[in-house]
Amino acid sequence: GMEEAPPPTSPAGLSAYVAVSQLLGLTLLVTTGAWLGRYRGGVAWHSSLQFNVHPLCMVLGMVFLQGDALLVYRVFRHEAKRSTKALHALLHGLALLIALVGIVAVFESHRAKGIPDMYSLHSWCGMATFVLYLLQWLLGCGFFLFPGASFSLRSRYKPHHIFFGVSLFILSIAACLLGITEMLLFKISDSYSHFVPEGILANTLGMLLVAFGLVVGYVLTRDDWKRPPLAEELALSMDFKTLTEGESPGDGS
Amino acid sequence: GMEEAPPPTSPAGLSAYVAVSQLLGLTLLVTTGAWLGRYRGGVAWHSSLQFNVHPLCMVLGMVFLQGDALLVYRVFRHEAKRSTKALHALLHGLALLIALVGIVAVFESHRAKGIPDMYSLHSWCGMATFVLYLLQWLLGCGFFLFPGASFSLRSRYKPHHIFFGVSLFILSIAACLLGITEMLLFKISDSYSHFVPEGILANTLGMLLVAFGLVVGYVLTRDDWKRPPLAEELALSMDFKTLTEGESPGDGS
Repeated sequence: GMEEAPPPTSPAGLSAYVAVSQLLGLTLLVTTGAWLGRYRGGVAWHSSLQFNVHPLCMVLGMVFLQGDALLVYRVFRHEAKRSTKALHALLHGLALLIALVGIVAVFESHRAKGIPDMYSLHSWCGMATFVLYLLQWLLGCGFFLFPGASFSLRSRYKPHHIFFGVSLFILSIAACLLGITEMLLFKISDSYSHFVPEGILANTLGMLLVAFGLVVGYVLTRDDWKRPPLAEELALSMDFKTLTEGESPGDGS
Repeated sequence: GMEEAPPPTSPAGLSAYVAVSQLLGLTLLVTTGAWLGRYRGGVAWHSSLQFNVHPLCMVLGMVFLQGDALLVYRVFRHEAKRSTKALHALLHGLALLIALVGIVAVFESHRAKGIPDMYSLHSWCGMATFVLYLLQWLLGCGFFLFPGASFSLRSRYKPHHIFFGVSLFILSIAACLLGITEMLLFKISDSYSHFVPEGILANTLGMLLVAFGLVVGYVLTRDDWKRPPLAEELALSMDFKTLTEGESPGDGS
């Protein structure tokens, strides 16, 4: 109840940065929608507009949702770790599903138009990122959600999970920038250099993607904004230390 | 003398990762040179080949030298901090100079061919990165090299210097990927989708740039590979703490 203890507070500044990240994230989606709707005929599955599903899904899944999945440990810092983990996995899972729809859209659209697949740097970066992201999600579920992995195995895997997680988020944004550049040079190669509104809008989308990445990256890397362990988690970790220090040498793996 | 103490050692693995980063860095330069030499007519200043100076200088300056400048605190971990700082500033300064030559090359080449400047996402990302990199270098020299800034001011600026430093390194690589995509779509738009060797080579260069960024990023973010403070630095920092904790409250800024 509220009369028992004051509600836990978040560090000053964190909420403001998270709010800015969400505003930027929504602006990303609106800008992508505006580009596709105003200049590219809109979005539809069974039509020549199927390609346009691709950029929309990739920005929504691989950037906005992936970014938000990374932020949950900072935002829900006083919730039980198990629920926050589940939300983290759920958001990444949703991101993967939406990205898969986006990938199917581009392959089907290529087939309909007789365009070869996987020849460009955008496709190499994007596909590598998607496959590694799926792998990272499976490994993350296996190590952290299912009860099989030991505390010590989890502790050893965790820094690698974090490094590759942030790397895949950055790579996703880089792949989007490459996609924007490809699309502009395919569609408006003659007018792009004359600063036409579509070019300015798509360039702005690129800069907004960079800004979203910078704000999310800043929140994730501020040491004093990391999620503090709850009292019961600290106790558990102490128990573990006592246990392992009590083991005879050579007992562990 | 060597008879006084054993030479200080580096953490296991660090040297291997640094060696891989340097091999990747050299491979970047060779691959860029091979692309320009074999498929783009080579590099020359006063000629129609002036444009080719641009990719070579940007990969050398903004990626290889910038990356190595970030690694000096890990590689020269047992040297005096002042010399390592000077090397860090020097490598970044050299990177800036070489990048400036690369930028002049593209502007002069555009003027000679009547191509407009600064309309593409590559130019927006690249120019923003260069200007912020110059600013970061000036601020870094002002705060850390010249004796004016106080210990407390340096300590407050340092985490921001590190965050923006890593961000600018990542942005530099992203700008290179965009430049590769632009150049391929300008020069071989008709054959790129047929998996011609030039396209494969340039895509490979892009993936090598990503690999260089990942290896450098891994070395920089491993907590246990951070440069340990020397004994005399620790003593200084203790002196500072004693001094400031002895101050009356409200004394500081």
